Amino acid sequence: MEKDGEKGAGAKRADDFSKWYVDVLTRSGFIDYSDVSGAMVLRPAAYFAWQKISEVVDKKFRESGIENVYFPLFIPERFLKMEQEHFEGFMPEVAWVTEAGNSKLNERLAVRPTSEAIMYPSYSKWVRSWRDLPIRYNQWNNVVRWEFKHPMPFIRTREFLWNEGHSAFATEEEARKEKDEIIKIYVDVLREYLALPGIVGLKSEHEKFAGAVESYSIEHIMPDGWAIQGPDFHIDGQNFSKPFDIKFLDREGKTAHAWQNTFAITTREIGIMIATHGDDRGLVMPPKLAYVQIVIVPIYKDESKDRIMAYARKIEKELKGRYRVVLDKRDTYSPGFKFNEWELKGVPVRIEVGPKDVEADKAVVVRRDTLEKRGVQVESISKEMDKLMEDINVKLYEKASAFLKRSIHEVDDYREFKRVLDGDRGFVSAQWCGSTECEAKVKEETGAKITNVPITERKLEKGRCIYCGKDAKARANFARSY
Amino acid sequence: MEKDGEKGAGAKRADDFSKWYVDVLTRSGFIDYSDVSGAMVLRPAAYFAWQKISEVVDKKFRESGIENVYFPLFIPERFLKMEQEHFEGFMPEVAWVTEAGNSKLNERLAVRPTSEAIMYPSYSKWVRSWRDLPIRYNQWNNVVRWEFKHPMPFIRTREFLWNEGHSAFATEEEARKEKDEIIKIYVDVLREYLALPGIVGLKSEHEKFAGAVESYSIEHIMPDGWAIQGPDFHIDGQNFSKPFDIKFLDREGKTAHAWQNTFAITTREIGIMIATHGDDRGLVMPPKLAYVQIVIVPIYKDESKDRIMAYARKIEKELKGRYRVVLDKRDTYSPGFKFNEWELKGVPVRIEVGPKDVEADKAVVVRRDTLEKRGVQVESISKEMDKLMEDINVKLYEKASAFLKRSIHEVDDYREFKRVLDGDRGFVSAQWCGSTECEAKVKEETGAKITNVPITERKLEKGRCIYCGKDAKARANFARSY
Repeated sequence: MEKDGEKGAGAKRADDFSKWYVDVLTRSGFIDYSDVSGAMVLRPAAYFAWQKISEVVDKKFRESGIENVYFPLFIPERFLKMEQEHFEGFMPEVAWVTEAGNSKLNERLAVRPTSEAIMYPSYSKWVRSWRDLPIRYNQWNNVVRWEFKHPMPFIRTREFLWNEGHSAFATEEEARKEKDEIIKIYVDVLREYLALPGIVGLKSEHEKFAGAVESYSIEHIMPDGWAIQGPDFHIDGQNFSKPFDIKFLDREGKTAHAWQNTFAITTREIGIMIATHGDDRGLVMPPKLAYVQIVIVPIYKDESKDRIMAYARKIEKELKGRYRVVLDKRDTYSPGFKFNEWELKGVPVRIEVGPKDVEADKAVVVRRDTLEKRGVQVESISKEMDKLMEDINVKLYEKASAFLKRSIHEVDDYREFKRVLDGDRGFVSAQWCGSTECEAKVKEETGAKITNVPITERKLEKGRCIYCGKDAKARANFARSY
Repeated sequence: MEKDGEKGAGAKRADDFSKWYVDVLTRSGFIDYSDVSGAMVLRPAAYFAWQKISEVVDKKFRESGIENVYFPLFIPERFLKMEQEHFEGFMPEVAWVTEAGNSKLNERLAVRPTSEAIMYPSYSKWVRSWRDLPIRYNQWNNVVRWEFKHPMPFIRTREFLWNEGHSAFATEEEARKEKDEIIKIYVDVLREYLALPGIVGLKSEHEKFAGAVESYSIEHIMPDGWAIQGPDFHIDGQNFSKPFDIKFLDREGKTAHAWQNTFAITTREIGIMIATHGDDRGLVMPPKLAYVQIVIVPIYKDESKDRIMAYARKIEKELKGRYRVVLDKRDTYSPGFKFNEWELKGVPVRIEVGPKDVEADKAVVVRRDTLEKRGVQVESISKEMDKLMEDINVKLYEKASAFLKRSIHEVDDYREFKRVLDGDRGFVSAQWCGSTECEAKVKEETGAKITNVPITERKLEKGRCIYCGKDAKARANFARSY
């Protein structure tokens, strides 16, 4: 097999972001294409990242009282039709099972694009009294959305992995309280594990989830200046509980419908993470999600081999158990080749050991994010790694935050608005009257949609809508978006 | 909502096993039916059990060098057709996606019934040299097999969750070595977590996996005397590597095809566990898979309530963190009602605290498996629980092993063979000449198939085939089987 290092990272990130993105993902062995159009293969390092993300989100969910369940993959068409807006939103991208074995089915079965329509008929059975609430259930599963746009690994794939939380509360107030708790979990995990910042805010009426009352999202910026939506939280009010008949006797003995929310984080975040941190040498993995965290590369001539390998093994032993370490023993490749290969894979830390290091009880430590090299005493190497891993995550997060901040352009004039979108790109923060008409016109004329109204910006500012000039309701972020 | 306890366990296990099985599963809130025929809903306690099983199997897999990946859900029909025997085996139960959005697809897509046909084209791309081997990949996912037989929760469902391991080695010898390692993992997890014994053996040519050279299985016995297949391991030889073109240059520079295995454990094991350990009061959960491990039920009158609740909370605090504990504070239900409800759910240990216990610094501990009651000093309760949990698992395993042993009937006469199948049922261990003809005739005449040839029995015994009377090759287990 052609070793990954031979190929190099491929296209330059600044020249052709899309090509660079696919090149680093495939050449590093992180993913591969399959012959199913719009689907991809998560190879071990990629699946590992998702497994870690889901483990830590799952832990935080459980601490907050959420329970896991599993509902069927297939949704009968008549269920999907029960909430009209929801159905119309998903209909254009549903994959349908129509045959099984040699039989035609009587009714088409949707491969779940999301599970409201299969979960809520059960909720309706389970809920009778206010004592049965809240229900705070979550699923970890795969969903299919048959998009016809150009596929892009992680970012736009016809199948993806996610969590889908579906809760039901007795009162609107309780339901609304869940929002901040869940968004905090997502924001924390993105920072601590993916080193990813984002903008938390309210989606516009037009852009909200099909069936929701309000949708909140975490919006990211990609290196090419296009925005991309991350995890979301939808306040569904009674929009589903009414058609799906999730009702109960409240404390006063009156019949009421439940108040619901849904929320999700998907494998898309992995793509955003790769795009954000990577460089022309390849992936740059945040340490907590890196499949290999440390690679040890011995540098020797024939006569020094035994001594240096023994020394390298000692370091490996010291770090093993605490870190995911690989000692690259391959004889057939040069150290330089190995450096390239492990850089392409985004391993956070490389430890080089050569004859001089052995004599001085040292090793050369190279961090992947900055490529900075430093001599370290072997006796303190474990402690050094602890600090370094933490520091790499912090630095990646800070760098991404600085880029996100630079990508937000506050603008009060429509010509300037268009100029920024065509020039610097990123988010244009502009006053908005709140009307869907202005939003649609801006989209039509500039290609930019409202990503969200940042939570921090929702207080009413005195100002005029960037499009119609009427009184503004808030500052919204507009962007061309994936 | 009608509380679970109100309903009782339903049918008696000995009278009507099938009805009892469905009754305890649904009334305990473990699963529910959905409106998708042949599919079910895993409620929190059921999903928890699967999550635990997959976590511990996953850990053991990783220790053995297996890596996780994720391949697409959909398999183009032409891929499924690449290995003919495999295709013919699965064809009758494949669910097909034929439409997406408003478009007809050009090619039908199978919803994976198993993933050989989508994984091996990638293996073919990835493997060039003996250095690229072994590949030992595993997936945790959902698969669909559209069975037309009567569905039964966990046991026969159209969608189920599983692991599917798919390895490729450079030599036949290495490939064959994987068998014992993987089967040991399954056997250990079944014993330690599900308290389930089984018979390890070789499937007959007729019953082996579609496409395999040899299939090994772990066979269980159900309370009704019917056998059921558990986890399996298939030696695929070069049956897939040839049609899927997984070839490489070996150490001598010659082109060779890889040697492959596949293996799986599924959610079916949860059903077998429930069926094996449950009783007329409901589920009996092995402690390590129990969603709630200990329930504390306070018994008080109005005047003693505060004192007893404080005492109960002290015990709860003592056990929390170490065990999954619930203090049942509900005012609206009697202790007797609560006992029934938690017994129905199969909680391994109940702790009752009443006025006399408070005075004596004691509590009454009731184990679910034997319903044995015992007074325990509160100061040693945590230590007692450690021992008790371990003991419950051991006792459940021993009881199930004794039943399995009693279910195996060594028989050397065909009339006796039929008599046993119609009477005691279970496994009939009989000499077999190894021919598919005799196996088919026995099946036709008695309804019993060969579950497997136990590994312990494979040495040649002098004897005559139970059907044709010719020289026997081995003792096989025959049984009517799910």
